[in-house]
Amino acid sequence: MDKPILSESVIFPKGDELPEFLSKYFTGKVWVSMLVGRDNEFNCPIGNVTFEPGCINNWHKHPGGQILLVTGGRGYYQEEGKPARELKPGDVVTIAPDVKHWHGAAHDSWFVHLSVETNANAGPAEWLEPVADEEYNKLK
Amino acid sequence: MDKPILSESVIFPKGDELPEFLSKYFTGKVWVSMLVGRDNEFNCPIGNVTFEPGCINNWHKHPGGQILLVTGGRGYYQEEGKPARELKPGDVVTIAPDVKHWHGAAHDSWFVHLSVETNANAGPAEWLEPVADEEYNKLK
Repeated sequence: MDKPILSESVIFPKGDELPEFLSKYFTGKVWVSMLVGRDNEFNCPIGNVTFEPGCINNWHKHPGGQILLVTGGRGYYQEEGKPARELKPGDVVTIAPDVKHWHGAAHDSWFVHLSVETNANAGPAEWLEPVADEEYNKLK
Repeated sequence: MDKPILSESVIFPKGDELPEFLSKYFTGKVWVSMLVGRDNEFNCPIGNVTFEPGCINNWHKHPGGQILLVTGGRGYYQEEGKPARELKPGDVVTIAPDVKHWHGAAHDSWFVHLSVETNANAGPAEWLEPVADEEYNKLK
């Protein structure tokens, strides 16, 4: 019963599938709706991001930092050198500038979060290598 | 049936009632949970704000701008010189720096939004006069 609900954004629009130049850094399908764009004075682009079950992104860094506000499903966040943290709706993740990390869905659940890119004029995300399969596959 | 649900934050914690030095700028009870604080490198404090039915804030301005992400209930946003805009879950409001505005609940509904204060190092909000009763009372 959960899947039809959690495949949606819960509150904010699901948007479109990521274009290939970004989706290549994810292991499956991802939808993004930009609620606040990059080309304005807010310095704070906000996207509603929906991951299909089992889909996660590569390791990456944001030079200005990022905040995740979880609104649906179940997923994970991991910083390099630390254990993965399970995420559920209502959870907040603050990711300091230049901290190497990944996030995405659990194996058996859709996952939806708002992504708030802070100090966005510091520059775009730096995309790195995929998460090792054995690292992700040991997560419940 | 809606009231018990919409008196909650829907997803994020409801938090505590505003202290008097801030609540004096609102016409009723307001609860705030700071999801991301002010004393950090993100330059982007985020609060989950819950208004009781009929509660709105005074006219005010943010020197760095503000973004509202509506997660529950029904309310309004108005910029000086423009008609009030009705708000429902999933709506996004981008408020440019120094634009005079107010927001809050409809007469008959709780109202919940995330408040994202952008470019927060530009300084604190400037609080102004209350919204005229006849202005608010004509809204449905």
